[in-house]
Amino acid sequence: MALIVQKYGGTSVGSIERIKIVARHIKETKDKGHKVVAIVSAMAGETDKLINLAKELSDRPSEREMDLLLSSGERISSALVAIRINEIGAKAVAMTGRQCGMVTDEVHTKARIKSIDADKIMEYVDDDYIVIIAGFQGISEKTGDVTTLGRGGSDTTAVAIAAAIKADVCEIYTDVDGIYTADPRIVKDARKLDKISYSEMMELASLGAKVLQIRSVEFGMKYDVPIMVLSSFTFNKGTLVTKEDENMEKILVSGIAQDKNQARLKINNVKDEPGIASMIFNTIAKNNINVDVIVQNVSDDGRTTDISFTVPREDADKAYELLKELSKTIDAGDVSINKDVAKVSIVGVGMRSHPGVAAKMFDALAKEGVNIRAISTSEIKVSCLIDEKYTELAVRTLHDAFNLSNKG
Amino acid sequence: MALIVQKYGGTSVGSIERIKIVARHIKETKDKGHKVVAIVSAMAGETDKLINLAKELSDRPSEREMDLLLSSGERISSALVAIRINEIGAKAVAMTGRQCGMVTDEVHTKARIKSIDADKIMEYVDDDYIVIIAGFQGISEKTGDVTTLGRGGSDTTAVAIAAAIKADVCEIYTDVDGIYTADPRIVKDARKLDKISYSEMMELASLGAKVLQIRSVEFGMKYDVPIMVLSSFTFNKGTLVTKEDENMEKILVSGIAQDKNQARLKINNVKDEPGIASMIFNTIAKNNINVDVIVQNVSDDGRTTDISFTVPREDADKAYELLKELSKTIDAGDVSINKDVAKVSIVGVGMRSHPGVAAKMFDALAKEGVNIRAISTSEIKVSCLIDEKYTELAVRTLHDAFNLSNKG
Repeated sequence: MALIVQKYGGTSVGSIERIKIVARHIKETKDKGHKVVAIVSAMAGETDKLINLAKELSDRPSEREMDLLLSSGERISSALVAIRINEIGAKAVAMTGRQCGMVTDEVHTKARIKSIDADKIMEYVDDDYIVIIAGFQGISEKTGDVTTLGRGGSDTTAVAIAAAIKADVCEIYTDVDGIYTADPRIVKDARKLDKISYSEMMELASLGAKVLQIRSVEFGMKYDVPIMVLSSFTFNKGTLVTKEDENMEKILVSGIAQDKNQARLKINNVKDEPGIASMIFNTIAKNNINVDVIVQNVSDDGRTTDISFTVPREDADKAYELLKELSKTIDAGDVSINKDVAKVSIVGVGMRSHPGVAAKMFDALAKEGVNIRAISTSEIKVSCLIDEKYTELAVRTLHDAFNLSNKG
Repeated sequence: MALIVQKYGGTSVGSIERIKIVARHIKETKDKGHKVVAIVSAMAGETDKLINLAKELSDRPSEREMDLLLSSGERISSALVAIRINEIGAKAVAMTGRQCGMVTDEVHTKARIKSIDADKIMEYVDDDYIVIIAGFQGISEKTGDVTTLGRGGSDTTAVAIAAAIKADVCEIYTDVDGIYTADPRIVKDARKLDKISYSEMMELASLGAKVLQIRSVEFGMKYDVPIMVLSSFTFNKGTLVTKEDENMEKILVSGIAQDKNQARLKINNVKDEPGIASMIFNTIAKNNINVDVIVQNVSDDGRTTDISFTVPREDADKAYELLKELSKTIDAGDVSINKDVAKVSIVGVGMRSHPGVAAKMFDALAKEGVNIRAISTSEIKVSCLIDEKYTELAVRTLHDAFNLSNKG
């Protein structure tokens, strides 16, 4: 008998039929003798519908009220799932973010969890109830107002609750059946992974894989909660996100990610003086634009440099305008923008102990004539910025080069 | 400068356009120098949509979860109205039932208000905010769960909050522009009343007039809150529900109500013994069926009686089956049912001091050949049960007989 947390995403509870399927699966888990706490997202499309209503009323809807508005979607689906479970003969109770003691900071629309009252949840669990919790929401510690955790926040709710109640596993049900070595829409023989480490999963999530919200993986790693990613459409065995083990380290590369939401900006002839680069990046950061791959080339005479970096594509025009302004102030040269770039990345904890992985990546790409425009690395990943048109070719090439379709 | 509570019903906030109109009107009230607290219902149709979702999942959805589900509608509209007011240049904040300290008993789907935290509301008001409150909902004093106040509960929320914050007036905005001497769809020259007393309004509400929830009027009377009923489509002067005054007592009849949601049941040859009648009405009451007009005829020999009474039409078949069963147990006679009946009523505080009002009603109906099948009276109303087909004729006849189209 285990204590199991399950999380069902928007498509998993996207219709009355889907809610019936999910309710039945939750009840079946209980019938096997387990204790179950389930977290649900809003029915697919509901959150966007509410956002659109708000946008019709205001260009910049107040964030405090947006949180109150958007939290309704999860309240509705949690009530509906609990109603269905009661109907089919098990005891279920729905709880809101407030009721399960989900206390956050006061940063509306992207609040962070401060504490969870496991006692309230466990009172129901110990009384033989299945507990259905509205994901994505909490209340502010300071004001008592409703807060939300940002897009994908229900993943974080689920893992945080699993940590708080010391669950044996947190099962994340979604519309894909696990984590793959590469996007199966691009690579036909992409392979579903049985296991992946938290740190690899975090890299993949930050590199464009959208299966799990990155903060949920952070929580999992911090509190050592095994996370199983699986499909609510097939209910097949999925991918376990867990602690690193020896076997994982034997594998050079676990997965490949691509991200087309990239644009590259370049500012030429920047004086190579202390404080100039930080002035550039501070200007960008103050405007809430995330900077990614940064490359700096010093000119032959060593007196000026060219600085380039990538930003999310939707922020590119704004960043471009900012840079052009700044270029005048700091007496630099031309500013250029390129939106036709993409980032391909290889991820694997094995890289730590195996040198030469990056070189092998560059070789493979070069052989296919794919130019690398910039490189960024961490301990367990290598990312290359390439021309967007080569994205699929690059992903397939790397998948072959690292032999990912064959189980390590 | 006044402290004004406004309440907007479902049709008043039933679309983005309507929300814009309502937000503008609230802001205009504030711009005149008043302090404003507004209570909003769910957008028209939303509550029914949620009820239908639940019904697709369960024949008898759990009431605790229904309350969580249904409270979402008002949360959404309160957030949207506040977002719009912020957009057009005034400070607004949305509050849920919990946030404004609306504490109720734990009777889900028809909870009763126990207390309200006026301080939380007034903090915002004193800080120059317009406060938009989600109507219809509270939290249970014992469990902290979300509760709702039943259909029309936002009226009660509004009047109760007006009482708690000692507002100068509670304006109820709806899709009609006041209280009429009779239903204007039936009586062409029905007249809008400038004023009506709480007790008359309570009778009218309980007799089928659907403008105000009866409990809201009770609250108004108990805490002496002047209630103005008016239209959010015309914003014309409406009807003030207030304390009785001398002028009101001069008028015999203030209004006429009709209710077609009636069915009459009759059980014959009931032994005229102590305890038998109470057994009948206890059986009906235990099944949550409200009994209305009761008539008991003793037979010539004084040993048996015929008992008849009315129930809401939707409960008629159930009550009929219960009575048939019971008739065997208590050795009574036939049970009959008649769904083609209606109730017409005249209401007026003037009746107290003017005898002969009932007689005048019976005369007027008799002259038009309308048979009276049962009568029920209170201090300030007379109701007659008649054949349903005569309803409109009866209402028009009484409107003429008591000269209601001419202002007293």
